[in-house]
Amino acid sequence: MFQEVDKHITRCSPFSQAELELFHSKLKPRKVRKRTFLLSEGEVCRFEAYIVKGCVKKYFIDNNGDEVILQFAVEDWWISDIASFAEQKPSNLFIETLEDSELLMIDFESKEQLYKEIPHLERVFRLMLQRSYAVLENRLYSTVANSAEERYLDFIKRYPTIPQRVPQQQIASYLGITPESLSRIKSNLIKKS
Amino acid sequence: MFQEVDKHITRCSPFSQAELELFHSKLKPRKVRKRTFLLSEGEVCRFEAYIVKGCVKKYFIDNNGDEVILQFAVEDWWISDIASFAEQKPSNLFIETLEDSELLMIDFESKEQLYKEIPHLERVFRLMLQRSYAVLENRLYSTVANSAEERYLDFIKRYPTIPQRVPQQQIASYLGITPESLSRIKSNLIKKS
Repeated sequence: MFQEVDKHITRCSPFSQAELELFHSKLKPRKVRKRTFLLSEGEVCRFEAYIVKGCVKKYFIDNNGDEVILQFAVEDWWISDIASFAEQKPSNLFIETLEDSELLMIDFESKEQLYKEIPHLERVFRLMLQRSYAVLENRLYSTVANSAEERYLDFIKRYPTIPQRVPQQQIASYLGITPESLSRIKSNLIKKS
Repeated sequence: MFQEVDKHITRCSPFSQAELELFHSKLKPRKVRKRTFLLSEGEVCRFEAYIVKGCVKKYFIDNNGDEVILQFAVEDWWISDIASFAEQKPSNLFIETLEDSELLMIDFESKEQLYKEIPHLERVFRLMLQRSYAVLENRLYSTVANSAEERYLDFIKRYPTIPQRVPQQQIASYLGITPESLSRIKSNLIKKS
């Protein structure tokens, strides 16, 4: 169960067996069905979750009542509302499973304790945050600077397994376009190839 | 010169005098005039800069040739293209001073070496990234979910000194509205108050 998450963290920094065991002791395994809400708007985000298996989305509801998807996460990704978790304040976001999923969840106090006992775990999460920040900034940038087709190509490069796993409408929401535009882009790409 | 940055990092983790001196030895002080480009699109971002004095903006140019401002930074903030710096790959962004500024700059190799020699520096930058991520995610969220007036109020709360220091047009660019809309919002707020 911990094999993948161990690979994930040891890519960033070496861990002793004792440190890995301490780390495991703080992770709560959880199996959840498709369409389970892990977080709803107004709640404090109590977890960071590593995805062993499954697919999860993070989104908010805009003024028109539409879903705006901020992130998909699949195997070997972490998901959380970073701001709500870090400051233990109410979230604006929803986190919901898109498939039956197996997660390893850690709560705020356990994570702070781990940082104390395994200081170089800071490096793992510093590097993870760096990547998340880069993805988010690229998203903000590409929404304005790139065409919808470029954004779709970038999306399938970053998330190669998602198009087979997630309804088209959700991918359109992530890209900030209508499902009809996404269909058009996909048929154009097929014609071109 | 290092007084403020020392306060900044010791807020997150305690540092010994020897550690602070090592940290200082890696920071290159630089005084730059207003309208200096610290980074241009296509260059690799070679620095993270702590702002001792001054004001800096980070932006990109969209498909219409317009500036889209991603971040302002003033005293006691860090500025960098995090993705370009972390992966040492070409940037899509510009970083430019808006005032004569005094900076403390650190390059990639020096920072990696510092992480090796002062491992708990990881904590400082992990916390900094957490805040930056929260600001960026909130920006993405609020652009879609909040009114322009709410965004302006949030902006002056986060950056109380910027409205006196930066042309109105730049603030409008950050908020994703026209300078005319910003004027309207400001006069409405004055009427209300």
